[in-house]
Amino acid sequence: MGVEYDGSDFHGWQTQVGVRSVQSCLEAAVGRVADHAIGLHCAGRTDARVHAIEQVVHFDTTASRSERSWVLGANVNLPPDVAVRWAHPVDERFHARFSAVARHYRYQIMVRRTRSPLLRSRVAWVHAPLDAAHMQAAGSHLVGEHDFSSFRTVACQAKSPVRRIHYLRIVEQDGLFTIHVGANGFLHHMVRNIAGVLIAIGRGEASVDWTQALLHVRDRTRGGVTAPPQGLFLVKADYPSEFALPQS
Amino acid sequence: MGVEYDGSDFHGWQTQVGVRSVQSCLEAAVGRVADHAIGLHCAGRTDARVHAIEQVVHFDTTASRSERSWVLGANVNLPPDVAVRWAHPVDERFHARFSAVARHYRYQIMVRRTRSPLLRSRVAWVHAPLDAAHMQAAGSHLVGEHDFSSFRTVACQAKSPVRRIHYLRIVEQDGLFTIHVGANGFLHHMVRNIAGVLIAIGRGEASVDWTQALLHVRDRTRGGVTAPPQGLFLVKADYPSEFALPQS
Repeated sequence: MGVEYDGSDFHGWQTQVGVRSVQSCLEAAVGRVADHAIGLHCAGRTDARVHAIEQVVHFDTTASRSERSWVLGANVNLPPDVAVRWAHPVDERFHARFSAVARHYRYQIMVRRTRSPLLRSRVAWVHAPLDAAHMQAAGSHLVGEHDFSSFRTVACQAKSPVRRIHYLRIVEQDGLFTIHVGANGFLHHMVRNIAGVLIAIGRGEASVDWTQALLHVRDRTRGGVTAPPQGLFLVKADYPSEFALPQS
Repeated sequence: MGVEYDGSDFHGWQTQVGVRSVQSCLEAAVGRVADHAIGLHCAGRTDARVHAIEQVVHFDTTASRSERSWVLGANVNLPPDVAVRWAHPVDERFHARFSAVARHYRYQIMVRRTRSPLLRSRVAWVHAPLDAAHMQAAGSHLVGEHDFSSFRTVACQAKSPVRRIHYLRIVEQDGLFTIHVGANGFLHHMVRNIAGVLIAIGRGEASVDWTQALLHVRDRTRGGVTAPPQGLFLVKADYPSEFALPQS
């Protein structure tokens, strides 16, 4: 399934006792359609307040339903801040997390003197001007295969800190700066830590070479602040074409 | 002052007993900065759940504060869904409503098979495809000075139903249709009634000539449904340059 959610009122993707998670809402809704308990796996677990334009999830089921029935049935059982966009049957070789060959994220930053009520749950707010060219130059140093130890949270449980960033582009329009980034995978907090470093460079608080230096030292304590969660969007995940997913 | 708000949790601009309004929140916050009671007038009163990117308001005060103090002082006393963008002193000839020479609105429509959690409070959702060229042709009939009786709510208190629409443009990108419209003024529900008619025409439920016919009959009961409030944004109001407002 492809799933969209507004992360504002969720304590992230993953089910935790006593808090509201996307996973538990979805498992309950899909379980009603399947008429049996459902366990969901996703392409990329998102933190509290992080959004998804198209998260991909899979589950095993003995139920036989049309794609339309899975989508409409789940959506009537879901709250307004999460919805299923499509459903498609796959065989046992498919795994939402392990079959994904790439993930795409977006991080939005708004530069303005005053806070924005309309964008408050969709952007990081920065008062001072940002230099997009400096941010792009610094971000370009991160493209390729690198050890991203300086960009992952100390709590990150991934075995290897090595990831390959396929692209990192800065787009600015009317004071809204968007970092578009794609990679074979991301470490915990990696996009938000990259955003924190690029914001500091864009503000002139650090030099364009800082990203290279951080890759070299492989030490999270030398990195920048973690940018706030509400600016982050999981855009989509890519899978081999053999699975023929109806992605948007 | 220029004011932005997310209308989702407001029962509109105007103060009413027992409900939350933008006006009462702003009067309380600005009153704290002025240190006396404030009465606010606005460029265009918005209904419940309608947003403003830059509403313009004025008030009389005996207090002397810097522009920065008005802005920052009001914002610390305002809830997250409303903020002051700028403040500027004007003389007694200025009136936020009567001095405005034009208003600009935007109406957003999302075409998709499934509802959008991320845009749920910012668009009207339409399942079926829309024909943007038909909507533009029908909308173009409305440009100019006309009697808009067929497009105002029966409760509308304006003395004259005649308004001059300066432009009406349909822009489509990735399934998001935006109606951009500017006029010397708008009647109550006028933009939402225009949107309702253009959506019906875009879906092929009515012909492109329907807008012309509606202008001619001057009868609200012959018009279409009123499009929902959450797709509507007051973008800005224009004032004579002599007031030198620092509009964005």
